[in-house]
Amino acid sequence: MLKVVKFGGSSLASAEQFKKAGDIVKAEECRRYVVPSAPGKRFKGDTKVTDMLYACYALAEADKNFSKELSAIKARYQEIMDGLSVTLDIDGEFKEIEKNFKAKAGKDYAASRGEYLNGKVMAAYLGFEFVDPADCILFDENGDFKPQESNELLAERLGKTAYAVIPGFYGAKADGTVTTFSRGGSDITGSVVSRAVNADIYENWTDVSGVMVVDPGIVPNPAVINTITYRELRELAYMGATVLHEDAIFPVRREGIPINIRNTNAPEDPGTMIVESTLKKSDYTITGIAGHKGFVSVNIEKDMMNSQIGYCRKILSAFEENGVSIEHMPSGIDTMTVFVRETDFEAKEQNILAAIHKYAKPDMIELESGLALIAVVGRGMKSMRGTAGRIFSALAHAKINVKMIDQGSSELNIIIGVKNEEFDEAIRAIYNIFVETQI
Amino acid sequence: MLKVVKFGGSSLASAEQFKKAGDIVKAEECRRYVVPSAPGKRFKGDTKVTDMLYACYALAEADKNFSKELSAIKARYQEIMDGLSVTLDIDGEFKEIEKNFKAKAGKDYAASRGEYLNGKVMAAYLGFEFVDPADCILFDENGDFKPQESNELLAERLGKTAYAVIPGFYGAKADGTVTTFSRGGSDITGSVVSRAVNADIYENWTDVSGVMVVDPGIVPNPAVINTITYRELRELAYMGATVLHEDAIFPVRREGIPINIRNTNAPEDPGTMIVESTLKKSDYTITGIAGHKGFVSVNIEKDMMNSQIGYCRKILSAFEENGVSIEHMPSGIDTMTVFVRETDFEAKEQNILAAIHKYAKPDMIELESGLALIAVVGRGMKSMRGTAGRIFSALAHAKINVKMIDQGSSELNIIIGVKNEEFDEAIRAIYNIFVETQI
Repeated sequence: MLKVVKFGGSSLASAEQFKKAGDIVKAEECRRYVVPSAPGKRFKGDTKVTDMLYACYALAEADKNFSKELSAIKARYQEIMDGLSVTLDIDGEFKEIEKNFKAKAGKDYAASRGEYLNGKVMAAYLGFEFVDPADCILFDENGDFKPQESNELLAERLGKTAYAVIPGFYGAKADGTVTTFSRGGSDITGSVVSRAVNADIYENWTDVSGVMVVDPGIVPNPAVINTITYRELRELAYMGATVLHEDAIFPVRREGIPINIRNTNAPEDPGTMIVESTLKKSDYTITGIAGHKGFVSVNIEKDMMNSQIGYCRKILSAFEENGVSIEHMPSGIDTMTVFVRETDFEAKEQNILAAIHKYAKPDMIELESGLALIAVVGRGMKSMRGTAGRIFSALAHAKINVKMIDQGSSELNIIIGVKNEEFDEAIRAIYNIFVETQI
Repeated sequence: MLKVVKFGGSSLASAEQFKKAGDIVKAEECRRYVVPSAPGKRFKGDTKVTDMLYACYALAEADKNFSKELSAIKARYQEIMDGLSVTLDIDGEFKEIEKNFKAKAGKDYAASRGEYLNGKVMAAYLGFEFVDPADCILFDENGDFKPQESNELLAERLGKTAYAVIPGFYGAKADGTVTTFSRGGSDITGSVVSRAVNADIYENWTDVSGVMVVDPGIVPNPAVINTITYRELRELAYMGATVLHEDAIFPVRREGIPINIRNTNAPEDPGTMIVESTLKKSDYTITGIAGHKGFVSVNIEKDMMNSQIGYCRKILSAFEENGVSIEHMPSGIDTMTVFVRETDFEAKEQNILAAIHKYAKPDMIELESGLALIAVVGRGMKSMRGTAGRIFSALAHAKINVKMIDQGSSELNIIIGVKNEEFDEAIRAIYNIFVETQI
């Protein structure tokens, strides 16, 4: 058994949090490769070290004095090291950083120092080897990650050490220029490391006990999902659920390595397992609910539409030409409705309508804005008859007007359209029927 | 008040039926223009006069003797005339027909004689003027109906007579060649006449008391629809409900003339009113249910599909290129399902799959055949919350697995996909919940 453990910023924000992370690593001999983020917020209103670094570097780039700002960052690390009784030549590191900031080493370099220094502290604290990803995670000239080369380099480098700390978020181009993934990219580093060492599990430690069935901003203290497939997670994430950096899924998914989302503050909780596929049933028929406000529906009617080959394609062309992505397009007989994001549609509205008229000569076009889409996702829905009945009965009972329903034969999810103002209530109604009452 | 009354073949199959039709015409002074079909079946296993004419003419065209067959047709009319005590020079008519058959006057001419002769009998029986549509319903050289010219000619001709019989089904080209509408085309004649005389109502008399909520082959003695809009009727007709010839709707719809489907054998029944729009509520929330077996679903999955502009359009192109019409295309996140008719799809299957692969590089394509689609149609669904809940609860209760759900924001209908073998049961379940129990 071999585990890669990645800790998020809140899990490493202070010496106290660092100790919890250390205890977690030490609790299992197999937790041999550790990927730390930069220190996050210690309390509400606090500033993440990454943001402090960006601000500090902005001053350097504008040739302004940044010594006060850099000292504040140094103080964050000093506080952690003091709390952990770790001794490190942090002065030398910060002299080097100061020099490079003055030489304008780049925004990516600046941001990466948060993880770099945290990796140094973590390695010293655990007694693990420090492996700098600048040597083994590669980006091309355009700043795009090179997965294959990185995997080979990392596998070779980590093959030489049984216990290592590899800071998240960054790597370097062939010429040595430090380059970062997009924000939240430590998740990707953890995934890439897991692939390289062929881990059995990629543990992703954060401040929640897993992926929740529903947004806790809508339903307080919702149930946690026990096991979720990559596909289900992608569906929930697309509709707004934020758990992992999206690009963190591909490296491990390809290798069949499950991701375990865990809570640093409640290590006894089993968290959520994210897997390729599973026979394990969801606890509640559905796996999760997610949604988004701010959609527009464009309803198009045309006599005999259904008998005209290529009619729908013509309508979609009108959106494509204007660079607007289609979300859903349920259809009746001689009528089709296209759902798009309001922000995408607004600026192009008249161009799109003109193009529809030109290509498709509809009898009628009707617009409706202020709509929300809700995805009810679950691999278990396929085998349970009556899921749709339960959903729509619950919505009817809550007096919610269903504007759209879309369920393809993948049967992994049902998409429901409601008005923005009924969005929260609709989600609560669906959550209640499946999770609370479980009738 | 002015009414055009059209009688179907079963309403004029025998002297007895003819009398009922005559009583109906005489019952209201305003029933001034009568459009008869050819005599239909008198009993199960009987042959319609139109089919007798086609068979007889096929012999003539092959230079075979057809005198026995023509006599049988003559006998049908003689029987009707005897029963009605109508005297007409039918011998002269049949000599003329025999001559024209021998001269190969055409299949359309042959078929049209059924309506022509029935019109003669009806005119004599009612004491109305006989107006030959060969003089006032025009077709172009390709056999396509010319609506505008016909309307002008008919309006002028019928403006000269207060009471007339105009046989259905046929007209003529500019050179006088008799030409017919497609089968069932007397419905169109009735509609065209209604427009020309600016009727208040177009009464279409047949052998059922109106449009039924559901196919009586699936639910015995179903409820009759009181009032239905043209749009609703089109949706039901598209999904298999057979009531009127589809082309019969346009002439009257444009003029706002309602169609009243009535039962010659039960003239006391109010029948179904087909109208452009109405505030009148349906009796049962839903207006009707119709459906079709024999669909295939093509389920396409592709990671990040939802983020790619134009992805759906590419997939639809693959179908369009192969001349296959899309029925419905519900979508999830990163997955879309295309429903097509099995008969359209079968021959093109591999071409379409190859084109999808070429244009859209999907991660997975899955086919499922043996599916049926059901349309639950109703203008009242929009204002009634919970319609979807009732439908899906009913289906769940009947243990039917819902393969697809599609409801756009027109909210006029919900399309449901089920397996072929569960089609009848699903329709019965939906009918029961809305019409029988009305809970």
